[in-house]
Amino acid sequence: MKHDMPYKLILTENELATQWYNVRADMSKKPAPLLNPATRKPVTLDELSKVFCTELAKQELDDTTAYIDIPGEIIDFYRMYRPSPLVRAYFLEKALDTPAHIYYKFEGNNTSGSHKLNSAIAQAYYAKKQGLQGVTTETGAGQWGTALSMACSYFHLACDVFMVKCSYEQKPFRREVMRTFGASVTPSPSDTTNAGRDILKRFPGTSGSLGCAISEAVESAVTRPGYRYVLGSVLSQVLLHQSIIGIETQLALQKYGVKADIIIGCAGGGSNLGGLISPFIGEQLRGEANYRFIAVEPASCPSLTRGTYAYDFCDTGRVCPLSKMYTLGCGFIPSANHAGGLRYHGMSSTVSELYDQGLIEARSVEQSEVFKAARDFARVEGTLPAPESSHAIKVAIDEAIKCKESGEAKNIVFGLTGTGYFDMMAYQRFNDGTMSDYIPTDAEIAKSLADLPR
Amino acid sequence: MKHDMPYKLILTENELATQWYNVRADMSKKPAPLLNPATRKPVTLDELSKVFCTELAKQELDDTTAYIDIPGEIIDFYRMYRPSPLVRAYFLEKALDTPAHIYYKFEGNNTSGSHKLNSAIAQAYYAKKQGLQGVTTETGAGQWGTALSMACSYFHLACDVFMVKCSYEQKPFRREVMRTFGASVTPSPSDTTNAGRDILKRFPGTSGSLGCAISEAVESAVTRPGYRYVLGSVLSQVLLHQSIIGIETQLALQKYGVKADIIIGCAGGGSNLGGLISPFIGEQLRGEANYRFIAVEPASCPSLTRGTYAYDFCDTGRVCPLSKMYTLGCGFIPSANHAGGLRYHGMSSTVSELYDQGLIEARSVEQSEVFKAARDFARVEGTLPAPESSHAIKVAIDEAIKCKESGEAKNIVFGLTGTGYFDMMAYQRFNDGTMSDYIPTDAEIAKSLADLPR
Repeated sequence: MKHDMPYKLILTENELATQWYNVRADMSKKPAPLLNPATRKPVTLDELSKVFCTELAKQELDDTTAYIDIPGEIIDFYRMYRPSPLVRAYFLEKALDTPAHIYYKFEGNNTSGSHKLNSAIAQAYYAKKQGLQGVTTETGAGQWGTALSMACSYFHLACDVFMVKCSYEQKPFRREVMRTFGASVTPSPSDTTNAGRDILKRFPGTSGSLGCAISEAVESAVTRPGYRYVLGSVLSQVLLHQSIIGIETQLALQKYGVKADIIIGCAGGGSNLGGLISPFIGEQLRGEANYRFIAVEPASCPSLTRGTYAYDFCDTGRVCPLSKMYTLGCGFIPSANHAGGLRYHGMSSTVSELYDQGLIEARSVEQSEVFKAARDFARVEGTLPAPESSHAIKVAIDEAIKCKESGEAKNIVFGLTGTGYFDMMAYQRFNDGTMSDYIPTDAEIAKSLADLPR
Repeated sequence: MKHDMPYKLILTENELATQWYNVRADMSKKPAPLLNPATRKPVTLDELSKVFCTELAKQELDDTTAYIDIPGEIIDFYRMYRPSPLVRAYFLEKALDTPAHIYYKFEGNNTSGSHKLNSAIAQAYYAKKQGLQGVTTETGAGQWGTALSMACSYFHLACDVFMVKCSYEQKPFRREVMRTFGASVTPSPSDTTNAGRDILKRFPGTSGSLGCAISEAVESAVTRPGYRYVLGSVLSQVLLHQSIIGIETQLALQKYGVKADIIIGCAGGGSNLGGLISPFIGEQLRGEANYRFIAVEPASCPSLTRGTYAYDFCDTGRVCPLSKMYTLGCGFIPSANHAGGLRYHGMSSTVSELYDQGLIEARSVEQSEVFKAARDFARVEGTLPAPESSHAIKVAIDEAIKCKESGEAKNIVFGLTGTGYFDMMAYQRFNDGTMSDYIPTDAEIAKSLADLPR
């Protein structure tokens, strides 16, 4: 095969970013502030610092500083697995017989298996710097928990993970990765917190939920000295750390002389999408370039395409601050046949505001077509993608096929957030032909939206 | 942390090797030839070509050509995941407080999760080029089967994998990766071959063995037109393809001005070790350099350290050619508590001959200390290693500690063959403290050696 450029558009370690980019600084209309649910007033640094590390709380509230220095210790850690490759999907292009040029930013080449590590290491660093003893968090299938346990191990920080009980029991492998990195993993609901004991009393035999695990993790952090709570998506601080994805993508495209036309990312809470597109959105906001951005979400959890833009609780347990976001209602839980992540009821406030301003398009896709795209991609590109990432693959393929029809050689860039090695039970359902789709009815969404805080 | 060189010693795609290196060409005393077990004469190309692809049979028998061109189609595929990184283990050095410099060649950043893909893609290519319809093979835990299914998918070749039944049932995840890549995976013993039916009749309810799976795979290949059998280790052709590991390592060290003192690899059948050390052994044989080479094997399957150098069957089923090798006897099966691979009864004829000539040292290690090294490595270097690879980590750490005692700043290079994502059940045993060791008794080894062919 003749290549007009390398398969991997590699940056050197010398080209590692030294600053994160805070897209909120370039937005003339900012994302709405977090509100204290009791007072309905914007949360203060003092309030946030009781739950989060102080430096992270500051980052959460800072919507004016465009560039924030990445501490040297974090850059040292990034060196282990960054810059991540931007890959030209020659083999996918060939299989699709498309004139489009397809590129993907691959975040899966680290042991956590996803982009989550980019923020986990930052949050662990600030916790360590603050002199904390440890952090708490919740995890569903375990991608975030794995990343956090690696980061805490690196900084010799205790890491207490509340893992949704059904995942703890049915998906033991990520649990064991976390334990190997020294994390303490507790099935949630547990009898170690008031929240857990309360749920266990009201619903004996429950297999748990993310909302319950959040409540336990938050309680466990705020009731113990030397502990804070950390979160892997949704928050503005997470988007800030994840901007490293977009900064590297932008630099690699510049280095190799490529101008992106369409930039595509999967969207659950918005951590990957927000990080990938931030610097490009910045260019657009400053009038320096013009891109199409596409957020891809599961049809079974369609916060952008079918949700409402309103203040809602960040958590099912209704203890966290209120965030203005596209939401399905904080009580919304995706259908049980939904595989993989991207199951959060809302969307990061920044992505929500950009979408509301018409800067981002959104599309929802059903999981059986997502897994088909995943399989087709794996067979030609040699990388088994995570189900989450495969949402972006599906739409990248759709756009490349449109290019074939129109004869346009567009440059399509998408985020391949991670690998699917711990998702083989879902792949098995797909391989066996027993995977099903579910699209919530309007009535179901209306019902969970009826509970929005007023 | 101040670095005197980058964390990753990266080669560009332009530096990808265009030739494999055949170390046998530089050996004045060659490895002993394969023998036909019926005639006790060296196997001929005609005989071998009934089982293997013709081009691969030629490579198997060629012990004089030092450099063999890598076909362009294979280089294209290598581009997807090669050159693989040579990583400076700064964080491990710091944790050990050693003056040694430690480097590892990491082969795990591809979906098959190991170096096996380097030979799988070559074998699939030659099968395709010969106009074959498909290939058959056996797999235990599935590392080789996964790599082969990826390679066959790429070349649109049928791939029939006989997977040891207990692994098929207890380790379903690699099975599903293979199926996702379109391979047909059959639990062995099966009723699809005479060999399988015979075993099932004699041992109803057996959970299978690698030896039985080999017999079924060979039968399935030779009894069907358009099929050949392929194997992921032991053979000289495999060492040839795996020389890409050593060639890149050698080039990266040269590029960054590092002279290796000790080169360490884990050793089961010898595919990784042989590939890693081949070009360095070549230098040594030509009098251009002087290295220490250390092969690390499990104490539970110690072919080099406790086996005999003799002709033995390559397979437990005693249908394949005889190979002169360090062997524990082809009936040797490691204790049931042995986790991971490196469970082959013998050692590649090339590695065996180099060991017999005193060019390589060998060391055996117990698995609980191997998993401890794996965990310690993961916690500082951020990569969860395969149990197989961790044998090399253990000895690299041992050597680095010796350097600390002696004050020597040696350059230690080891092969990190793959990732442990599909080995979490073994890690769980380690995390739970229920992992045990087993060293076979002299009587056990003598018993299996008593059955050597005479």
